[in-house]
Amino acid sequence: MNNRLTELLNIKYPIIQGGMIWCCGWRLASAVSDNGGLGLLGAGSMTPELLREHIKKCRAATVQPFGVNVPLIYQEIEGIMKVILEERVPVVVSSAGNPKTWTKQLKDKGITVLHVVSSSIFAQKAEEAGVDAVIAEGFEAGGHNGREETTTMALIPQIRRATSLPLVAAGGIATGAGILATLCLGADGVQVGTRFALSEESSASPEFKRACTEVKEGDTMLALKKLSPTRLIKNSFFDKIKEAEDRGANAEELLEIIGKGRTKLGIFEGNLTEGELEIGQVASLIDKVKPVETIIRDMIDNYNLALGRLKPML
Amino acid sequence: MNNRLTELLNIKYPIIQGGMIWCCGWRLASAVSDNGGLGLLGAGSMTPELLREHIKKCRAATVQPFGVNVPLIYQEIEGIMKVILEERVPVVVSSAGNPKTWTKQLKDKGITVLHVVSSSIFAQKAEEAGVDAVIAEGFEAGGHNGREETTTMALIPQIRRATSLPLVAAGGIATGAGILATLCLGADGVQVGTRFALSEESSASPEFKRACTEVKEGDTMLALKKLSPTRLIKNSFFDKIKEAEDRGANAEELLEIIGKGRTKLGIFEGNLTEGELEIGQVASLIDKVKPVETIIRDMIDNYNLALGRLKPML
Repeated sequence: MNNRLTELLNIKYPIIQGGMIWCCGWRLASAVSDNGGLGLLGAGSMTPELLREHIKKCRAATVQPFGVNVPLIYQEIEGIMKVILEERVPVVVSSAGNPKTWTKQLKDKGITVLHVVSSSIFAQKAEEAGVDAVIAEGFEAGGHNGREETTTMALIPQIRRATSLPLVAAGGIATGAGILATLCLGADGVQVGTRFALSEESSASPEFKRACTEVKEGDTMLALKKLSPTRLIKNSFFDKIKEAEDRGANAEELLEIIGKGRTKLGIFEGNLTEGELEIGQVASLIDKVKPVETIIRDMIDNYNLALGRLKPML
Repeated sequence: MNNRLTELLNIKYPIIQGGMIWCCGWRLASAVSDNGGLGLLGAGSMTPELLREHIKKCRAATVQPFGVNVPLIYQEIEGIMKVILEERVPVVVSSAGNPKTWTKQLKDKGITVLHVVSSSIFAQKAEEAGVDAVIAEGFEAGGHNGREETTTMALIPQIRRATSLPLVAAGGIATGAGILATLCLGADGVQVGTRFALSEESSASPEFKRACTEVKEGDTMLALKKLSPTRLIKNSFFDKIKEAEDRGANAEELLEIIGKGRTKLGIFEGNLTEGELEIGQVASLIDKVKPVETIIRDMIDNYNLALGRLKPML
């Protein structure tokens, strides 16, 4: 399937791997790119020098294009962008910040820029900033999330109206049927986080991956709305946050409970009780860690199967 | 399009009108049924005698099958069920309560029973209770909502795995493309609330309908989680609830703020500041009150258009 997204990114399938901190180094990114999608390195959990190393290793592992996900509020942003510009990474996916700050510099170097948004207003701002495409992420997504809580089903048609740019749907998509559903709603492709976080090539800890494959419906919840809304697995750390929120704790108090290094502790080091475990609702559909090659092949098969079942309404 | 849902309900299109209190009397229900869907009378805002009147008027207005939506926790449930059984309404959609209590009695009289659920566990309980089909409603839906906050995109594939019964998707569906998307995910049809609440035939007040057509992204929010989670438009009443919730108010305090008759005040009487305004996220996609005939025709056209755009992935 060729469309303007696959042409923009020079990829086979309109599938972008989400940039999830502690999950996506060169192994995951190169595997996704090598299998026809767009792999992303997650700069949000890397120093500039570590990112440079991953870019070099990713280049050595695949001839296909790949990208870097950059949370724009990241403290090491200057160093990260310096490496990206020097290494001439083909694609940058920016999130969590103002797309005006960096888009022009990146585009001037021939880098394709996508920006993650959670509302039409942010999509329009991204378009004004000159990005090449927007990624619209719904409430069901894991990790950091929009304040308006708009779900993928409600968000995608809305963003489709708000901008004429290529549109990538994110949040709640782990299967080919899910990809097809978002194309129905007006998306040109998808960004898949959770399913790739739970791949063999993901750098998340085995403990984290196992815990996520055991997630059932209702086992994740959007918390920390007084800070930055974040979808978490309900564990002992979550319970402390919830207890504080229920009694009306303010942002300061919540920050104190969180402390430092909680996501690394949970995702990378596999501390399932005290770590911050970020994953999407759709983890409940996933019961096995698989290699990227199988994940993508299954998605394509499932997409075509779901398409073949649809009938016109007369 | 014929499938097991249209056959079960003896309707042309797999589109059920949601049972929304204060919105759906005989005018709306008969219009939906007359145009190929399944119209529902909303018993939740009716006395048994008023329901009987609406059933008779609905029968006089259409030869097509229609149903009654019954919240099982409704205080007048005994009287409501007596009327339904006496009048031999073809379909009952039950919600908010244990499907075991009434399903057998209804089915013994030849009534088709559907039950609204928000999780796989509830879907399995409904199947065990002997219902004919389940309606799975996601987080984006208006009014009362599940505790697990699972969105339609994540919920439908999950329920599809949990039960082999005909499956109706609800929450976030206002267009033909939305219908198609949920069929991709494994649904056999849809329940549409918000779009029909904002029809000419809806008995909601003109003020409420106008306010809903002006809703933008992020203008509704799920509140009252310490009572029964409910999606509301952010108005002055909502602000009071939010302020109380943010400071940790308990259920008792929230009940006191709500008082009596808030939904009637908002939806039926059109008090936009002090009333409880229940509507789905997808209201942001709707900018016009239209007749049911146009709504359904547009849905079918839009469904076929969206279907025609899909391509296989090779």
